[in-house]
Amino acid sequence: MNTHISADRSAAEILHPLDRASRLTPTADGRLRGVTDDAYWNMASPWGGLTAATLMRAMMEHPGRIGEPVSLTLNFCAPVARGEFFVVVRPVRTNRSTQHWYAELTQPDIGVAATATAVFAARRETWSHRPATPPDVPPPESLASMPTGGSSAWLNLYNFRFATGEMRRDGKPGEKPASPLSHVWLNPIPARPLDFLALTALSDIFFIRILQVRGYMVPMGTVSMTTYFHATGEELSALGIEPVLGVADAKIFDRNFADQQADIWSRGGRLLATCYQISWFKE
Amino acid sequence: MNTHISADRSAAEILHPLDRASRLTPTADGRLRGVTDDAYWNMASPWGGLTAATLMRAMMEHPGRIGEPVSLTLNFCAPVARGEFFVVVRPVRTNRSTQHWYAELTQPDIGVAATATAVFAARRETWSHRPATPPDVPPPESLASMPTGGSSAWLNLYNFRFATGEMRRDGKPGEKPASPLSHVWLNPIPARPLDFLALTALSDIFFIRILQVRGYMVPMGTVSMTTYFHATGEELSALGIEPVLGVADAKIFDRNFADQQADIWSRGGRLLATCYQISWFKE
Repeated sequence: MNTHISADRSAAEILHPLDRASRLTPTADGRLRGVTDDAYWNMASPWGGLTAATLMRAMMEHPGRIGEPVSLTLNFCAPVARGEFFVVVRPVRTNRSTQHWYAELTQPDIGVAATATAVFAARRETWSHRPATPPDVPPPESLASMPTGGSSAWLNLYNFRFATGEMRRDGKPGEKPASPLSHVWLNPIPARPLDFLALTALSDIFFIRILQVRGYMVPMGTVSMTTYFHATGEELSALGIEPVLGVADAKIFDRNFADQQADIWSRGGRLLATCYQISWFKE
Repeated sequence: MNTHISADRSAAEILHPLDRASRLTPTADGRLRGVTDDAYWNMASPWGGLTAATLMRAMMEHPGRIGEPVSLTLNFCAPVARGEFFVVVRPVRTNRSTQHWYAELTQPDIGVAATATAVFAARRETWSHRPATPPDVPPPESLASMPTGGSSAWLNLYNFRFATGEMRRDGKPGEKPASPLSHVWLNPIPARPLDFLALTALSDIFFIRILQVRGYMVPMGTVSMTTYFHATGEELSALGIEPVLGVADAKIFDRNFADQQADIWSRGGRLLATCYQISWFKE
């Protein structure tokens, strides 16, 4: 018995924070149970990237799953509260080579805090064409890491090396808005090989563009995000722990809502994911 | 009785095809019933833009609805077959000023053919900023309408005036791919004032980019699309029947899936919606 506990402990100790915080355990009534992890705490709830990765994990680990993720849409309905939560996930439809999913994350005192839909597919080699080309930015080694101390906990779990559009807090109301465009090299701390869980989390890593544009905090939060995956699990795995390049931009900030477009590139110049968001703000 | 029938008939006669084809009738068991409309027939099923508009309508007409659409994600799970279909729609969560939706479209012999999630919100005046600027293209009056005769039925319900990247059918396998970028002025035939239904449909109006890039038909279909709405119903209504400008592009075509980014602009240069898709193809 002691041996067993000790083995569990060392397994938990070697789990990467992303794997630890997204863990789900089946319940007797067919749901999955998870517990929020303070390491991923954001302003008023866990970081949305972790919530997205958790729902992705519920799909990835479902025994009926076929293929790999092609698209994922997360709707953030309410802040997830500290403590336990439950995930209900179901394949809505399974075709020969594609599968459609719906998932809900609920909490006893909150109700539905997030919903997700996804498309998975068994992808095959086809004609291929990549009209989008990677941006030309300095290598990550030449760039300084953003200091993350004293900020939201989850920021300490990533190394952010901005080439352009670094997060800034020096803006004031009435000033000319800065460009919403950012180029940033990203890698998790501690290191962890890239996979769909990590890529899903990365698609919410870009600071909400209004912070970049205005340069100071306003009440804000992502309400819906969609990620399209352009790599296979095998390709992600082959990239190992090398940093990826994120490019985030925005087109409009208007009447409580702002958008975001983001691309995630491998260091070798492969487009891994395209990510879109609409976020709420108040000012 | 005859008078009643005659009144019904004239009501049906004056309905715009979009309003007629997206009509939903409550059933005794709390679902909504609709019937496919041949006027919107695409290659193997109704045009996805109509399916999206139909699910949007189910949300817009729900008695518990608050606010207006901010985002909509449609997942096309299976081709909708000719005949009747049923929509189940529910507000998953209603906050003070935002509301989250889930909807499914099912058919007796097909099962789930489409799912949708959406975020609605009561939007208020805030600080506003529009970094994206409208492209400079010739006015619609100076451009020829694309001939639509002999193609899929639904194409006859729109006037397409391409400034760049017109739909082409002159490509051959092995040729250099064309640019995926298109600029096209769009208006429905017959004319119909713009609203969220029309804008939802318009977000699926761009020919799947692989057709543009390769210049010939391959097996293909949209599997997931997300639209972000950047205008209020009042603003859309004020635009009346004037054409809107669509700009569609793509970044990647790889292993059965290709993406699309599209912006919809008012003639006066306002960004009305941003639309994203992932589509399946085989070649």
